[in-house]
Parts: sequence; structure tokens; C-alpha cells
Amino acid sequence: MPNQSPIILSTWSFGAKANQAGWDALSNDGTALDAVEIAARVTELDPDNTSVGYGGYPNEHGIVQLDAAIIDGKTGKMGAVAALEGFRSAISIARKVMEEEPHIFVVGDGAREFAMKHGFKEENTLTAQSAAWYADQLKKKEQSPGGHDTIGVLSQDAQGDMAVACATSGMSMKWNGRVGDSPLIGAGLYLDGKIGGATGTGTGERAIEVCGAFAIVEFMRNGLSPQKACEKLITRMVERNQPAIDFQFAYIALNADGATGAASVKEGFQYAVCRAGQNEIRSSAVYGIDFM
Amino acid sequence: MPNQSPIILSTWSFGAKANQAGWDALSNDGTALDAVEIAARVTELDPDNTSVGYGGYPNEHGIVQLDAAIIDGKTGKMGAVAALEGFRSAISIARKVMEEEPHIFVVGDGAREFAMKHGFKEENTLTAQSAAWYADQLKKKEQSPGGHDTIGVLSQDAQGDMAVACATSGMSMKWNGRVGDSPLIGAGLYLDGKIGGATGTGTGERAIEVCGAFAIVEFMRNGLSPQKACEKLITRMVERNQPAIDFQFAYIALNADGATGAASVKEGFQYAVCRAGQNEIRSSAVYGIDFM
Repeated sequence: MPNQSPIILSTWSFGAKANQAGWDALSNDGTALDAVEIAARVTELDPDNTSVGYGGYPNEHGIVQLDAAIIDGKTGKMGAVAALEGFRSAISIARKVMEEEPHIFVVGDGAREFAMKHGFKEENTLTAQSAAWYADQLKKKEQSPGGHDTIGVLSQDAQGDMAVACATSGMSMKWNGRVGDSPLIGAGLYLDGKIGGATGTGTGERAIEVCGAFAIVEFMRNGLSPQKACEKLITRMVERNQPAIDFQFAYIALNADGATGAASVKEGFQYAVCRAGQNEIRSSAVYGIDFM
Repeated sequence: MPNQSPIILSTWSFGAKANQAGWDALSNDGTALDAVEIAARVTELDPDNTSVGYGGYPNEHGIVQLDAAIIDGKTGKMGAVAALEGFRSAISIARKVMEEEPHIFVVGDGAREFAMKHGFKEENTLTAQSAAWYADQLKKKEQSPGGHDTIGVLSQDAQGDMAVACATSGMSMKWNGRVGDSPLIGAGLYLDGKIGGATGTGTGERAIEVCGAFAIVEFMRNGLSPQKACEKLITRMVERNQPAIDFQFAYIALNADGATGAASVKEGFQYAVCRAGQNEIRSSAVYGIDFM
């Protein structure tokens, strides 16, 4: 059995808090799978985070619709939900989908029905702050989909097993039923337990178009480091959208040797890496425009 | 402007009828995008096809939920809908999502709302045959998700532009809200107008796990022929699921030079290739087990 140095890393500086919860799980014999689920849930349940889970800004109808997905590198199993209403955290529901047979991805009303069937309790998902934000948006002459942060978490435990989780409330003011990259296997997250994994945050449509997370893992499979794999994918994304680079997207990656990487289209992306219980906040050193 | 010999190819022998409709479009100055949409819609609207569109076998609640996606190689734009209720054809609604900004993928109730907003008319989606089939299923002691054919269509027009479409009613007796590979960019279909495209049919979960369509296009990008690219992906899929190869999945592919390929996990997959207005029904010459 390999004895790896456990690691957990998450998107954005708010990922440090998520990492800490995941690290506690890893330190108590939790698996990487447990760690990424717990980490993502911490961010989802944080009412002050307005782009993920409870407190997330709502869609065009003022309703919070959550997306989440999880991959277990040890078993290769995957689960995902999208456009889920009535729950503050979606990641544990995605994990439950993963554990049940035979499906991977459940959306909309069906996801809600699945959650209730499996004992998850419906709750109010709008905070006073997100309700007030929505009321304010309605006063504006034009509303358009906006902010779109996501909690993406990668981990490897002491046994060398890997996992990835990704959760979001999606773009604020998004269309009813719009699904971004976060719950899509290959776009918002991907992982092959023998190779490594990747997860991302930003304008989801740009990630869907290039199957970004899968592509990064494929680049690692073909020999690139996590850093070079992230840079290659962000370069492809930037080239595809030339000349109008009016969006942000960032990926983080982790390979089976425990090496990390990150790259973003524009400046301003941070991520949190936790080893030995210590969080370090990093900025992606290079941006899409630098690779060209 | 390149002057390619137009081509359209579709999954299964029923794809011949779809190809014929697409060919008529290509022959009347239609684009590849028009051709794949028209072809997929012919299969969707065929009440005798019990796995796609109108007449498709329903989900666990007796409701037909449709999935579809489309990619325009000329513009790189994409659109998709999933778990769509109340419409006999989903592919044109997916195309409308593609044409609108800023989203790519809309599911569930939101997809229905989008369709109604854009003038699509709701219709009954159950045929007498599919309703009777469902009633019969309920009499059985155990029900489980089953059949899962999909219409996948690839085309290249005389201008050299390419497009791909994919549509299904998904597994019969699937969970409410279950989404398979068909509407997922990268899993059920993918296309890069400069490289080529791929689309598939079978047990969708197995395709989601390997991002099959994107992987095939990536293999072509790295120099493989469409045939070798399909074989490499099916080999990966078979290896991933060893030793229990209790499912079928098949991909077809087309590159920007007009060359085709196909491979399947098991025997029994056919596809229809139409050039110069003539359909040829082919069997995938090799199966997953032969590549090992």
C-alpha cells in the first residue's frame, strides 16, 4: 500500500476553510472521497458564500438551483446532480447517486425526488441576503447571468487514493434549468485514480466547449505535469475564444504523485493547497495570455 | 472554399431514413448543421422508434423525457437539453438553445419553459404502443432501466463544414431526471470543425465515465484515423469495465477529410453511411474484445 503524504486543494481562497474540514477527515482515517465531500459541503453550507450552495445567488426566477458532482478514484464511480431545488448542499446527494445503481447523473425534479427518497430533508435555500440581492436585481432594467464561483476540491489520502468534488449554485440570474460545467463529468471535473484529476471554476460554458477537466487529465496521461496540463488547456480555451477573451476560467490539477498545478485565463484566481494541515493560498502564476 | 463530397452518417440501421432526410437538405444547399438537425428529427418523430423522441419508452413514472444536443463545427457553437417533457422532438429545441446567448445546456422544467418561450408547441409524447408497454412493465414484479438506442448523426457539407447531433429518450424505465450521455458535450457527442466529430449509442453511463466522444476527437487531433480513434476509445471503455462487459456501446466518427470510423463493445451494432444520396448499412467490423 503506498503511503502518500495526504493533500487537499480547493479553488479560491475560500477553499482554505473547505480544505481544513477535509484535512480533519483525512487526519481521522477518512478517505480522499470523504475529504472532498466534507470540504465541498462546508462551502455549500456557508451562508456568506454567495456563489455556492446555501446563500448562493438565485436564478432568473429567484430560485436557487444547485449543481454538484463527485468522482471516487478508488472505484472509478461517479455521481452528479443538477438544477436541484430545495436543498442547501448538493454534494452529498451527488455522492448518494454515485452509490446507487445504475445511473450517474440526475437533474431537476428527478434529483429532488431522488434526494427525498434517500432521506435528505428539504430546507429553505435563500438567505435574507440572497433574497434582497434578487429583489434588487429585479429593479434593474436589464438582468443578465453573472457571477459564477465554484468550489472544486481535489484530494489524495495516505493510501494514495484520489477523489474530486465540484459544487456551485451556478451563474446568478441564470435561466431556469441552466447547467454549467460543475456537475458535468469531463467539463467541471474529471479524475482517473491512476493518473490524476482536475476541477475548475469560471464561466462554465467555456469549459463545456473544451471538456476542460477531462482534457487536462488526458494531457497528464500523455506525460505532462499538472501545471503544464492546466496551461495547455487554458491556452486551448483562450485560442478558441480569440479575440474576445471576456471571461474568466481557472483549473487546478493534482496527479497521482501528489504534484499540483493551476492556470487561469485571467489574473485574479487563487487556490488553497493544504499539506500537513497547513493551508497555503496561491495565485495561478501565469494567465492564458502569457502562454500564447 | 473547399469542395468536399458531402456525407451524412447515423447510428443504427434506422439511421438510413434519417440520412435520407439529411441528404435531401444537403442537396438543397442545406448546411451540415441543417442536415444533422433534420436527420435526428426524422427519427425523433417516428412513432415506431421506441428509443428516441415521440414513441420512446417512458421513464419510471411513465413519462417520456427527451435528451438532445447539437454542435455546429463552423461556428463552434453548441446547444443541449435534457429531461425535457412535453415535446416530441428535442433536437430543434437544443439548436435554439445553441442560437441564444449565453447558455449551452438547459434541463428539466427549465428546458420546457425555454421551449414554450421560443414558440415550440407542447404535444402528447406517449404513443398507444409506449403507453401499453409501460402498463405491461408495471405488472412485472421488478422494473429496471433497459433499452437505450440513440440517433447520432454526423455530417460534412460541400463547403467542408461539419456538424453533429444526438437525440434519445434514454433508457426505458430510467429514474425521473436521469440523464445519459446523449445530451452531454464530450460524452455522447463532440466535434471540432477543424478535426472531426464523434457520436455514440449504448449504455450512457459507460460513455460518461470515459468522455468517449471528446476522447475520440482528441485521438484524431493527435493523428489517429476515425477508425483507429474509435477502436482506441472502445478498448479503453472495455478495459475500464473488466471483467464485467455486460453492456453495449458504439461510436461512429468522421474526420475533416471525410473519412469515417466505427467501433462497438459487442457485436450487433450497425450504422448507415450516405454519400451521393446512396445509403450503405455497415456493421462495425470489430468489437471491443477483438482489440484486446
